[in-house]
Amino acid sequence: MEKKLTVDVCLSPQMYSSHHRDEAIVVVIDILRATSAMCTAFHYGVEKMIPVATVEEATEYKKQGFMVGAERNGIALEGFDFGNSPFSYMTETIRGQTIVISTTNGTQAIEAARNAHRVVIGAFTNISALCDWLLAQNRSVVLLCSGWKNRFSWEDSMYAGAVTKRLLAAGLYKTGDAAIAMAFLYDESQKNQIKFLRNSSHAERLAAMGLKKDIKYCFQLDQTDVIPVLEGKYLVKLT
Amino acid sequence: MEKKLTVDVCLSPQMYSSHHRDEAIVVVIDILRATSAMCTAFHYGVEKMIPVATVEEATEYKKQGFMVGAERNGIALEGFDFGNSPFSYMTETIRGQTIVISTTNGTQAIEAARNAHRVVIGAFTNISALCDWLLAQNRSVVLLCSGWKNRFSWEDSMYAGAVTKRLLAAGLYKTGDAAIAMAFLYDESQKNQIKFLRNSSHAERLAAMGLKKDIKYCFQLDQTDVIPVLEGKYLVKLT
Repeated sequence: MEKKLTVDVCLSPQMYSSHHRDEAIVVVIDILRATSAMCTAFHYGVEKMIPVATVEEATEYKKQGFMVGAERNGIALEGFDFGNSPFSYMTETIRGQTIVISTTNGTQAIEAARNAHRVVIGAFTNISALCDWLLAQNRSVVLLCSGWKNRFSWEDSMYAGAVTKRLLAAGLYKTGDAAIAMAFLYDESQKNQIKFLRNSSHAERLAAMGLKKDIKYCFQLDQTDVIPVLEGKYLVKLT
Repeated sequence: MEKKLTVDVCLSPQMYSSHHRDEAIVVVIDILRATSAMCTAFHYGVEKMIPVATVEEATEYKKQGFMVGAERNGIALEGFDFGNSPFSYMTETIRGQTIVISTTNGTQAIEAARNAHRVVIGAFTNISALCDWLLAQNRSVVLLCSGWKNRFSWEDSMYAGAVTKRLLAAGLYKTGDAAIAMAFLYDESQKNQIKFLRNSSHAERLAAMGLKKDIKYCFQLDQTDVIPVLEGKYLVKLT
């Protein structure tokens, strides 16, 4: 039987239009740290998040009284409630709240894929829950790497490779050059985790800011079963 | 001393705007087969080539009496003089001629980079001449993969990795995530050339069309010393 479903890796939001398929589920990936932080926030009971692409929109929401997370270039912006660190969302104060979030790369990727059949949020911290759910959907999958300012990012691409491997193991999907390449890179990276991290310019950037704890957390598998999903302008917890 | 020059890999023409640097030399890469064919054409004495993005432009030139190569999806278009096969340019009839060329991916990449400081044409067939020349320029380099319809292509990315390795060996450049990843993939691909080709969907596509001879040729190193370079609307031989 010919496989009709595809698993496809899109290495930058800037390439999304060349990867869009009307019927596919898009997984948005920004390992360091937006999508990892989103998974943490939902795990800690946030009810909704509103991802916005610009700081202007974030500011507007802040004026309206929302709790807002805003980050650019790895730094939490002044005057907002959160940055991009998963640890900042590990608090009871967010339970039941709606939080607006704008980040350097992740929220741009969500914006790029907004019209997809379905947009869900992927991180190492929810990888097993996500893959199990994807495998149950009988749909093609686009793994969308947020990258760094529209450029290739090592850690997002590795994650896309990790998910590709898990999905292909089920034998349901055909795939393409990018997914094969990233799955191969992920395999190799597992043989030497330290060297792997040295190849990530953003991990280096964050380490230089004293954020090694964040990096370590963002690479831990299966800290949560939540899968954030886009519904209109909101991210909510998939139920 | 801090390295000021960069070698950077851009994995799709669609991402070029995020990789453009005013002062950098751009190497356009379309291994199967546009940039390989261009190197062959100049090696066989063509004087100028005019790369055009659309079939309409190619048709217009044909009406004006030019020799024209036109290819889409691996197939030479009817009514033109050449397709995309390097072998079609291995003829004395092209000596001193100006040939117009339009292909699925390669000529689109040239178009994307047209305003770069300098645009040159890279292939495995001219890799040593190209790398020697690049190393002598004291400029940053962007390796622009033409890809397949704006998507990642295995063979173009491997070539970018091969050039990255040669340039980094000189110790002059700093680099980023994409270049490191592609250099690593290239290294690994060298360990098993057959498996390497099986990962290229376009090599499979061409093989299914009976074009294995073309594939083999396009992966041969150093068949020529020519480096085609863009000057205005023309590609000419770098002298």
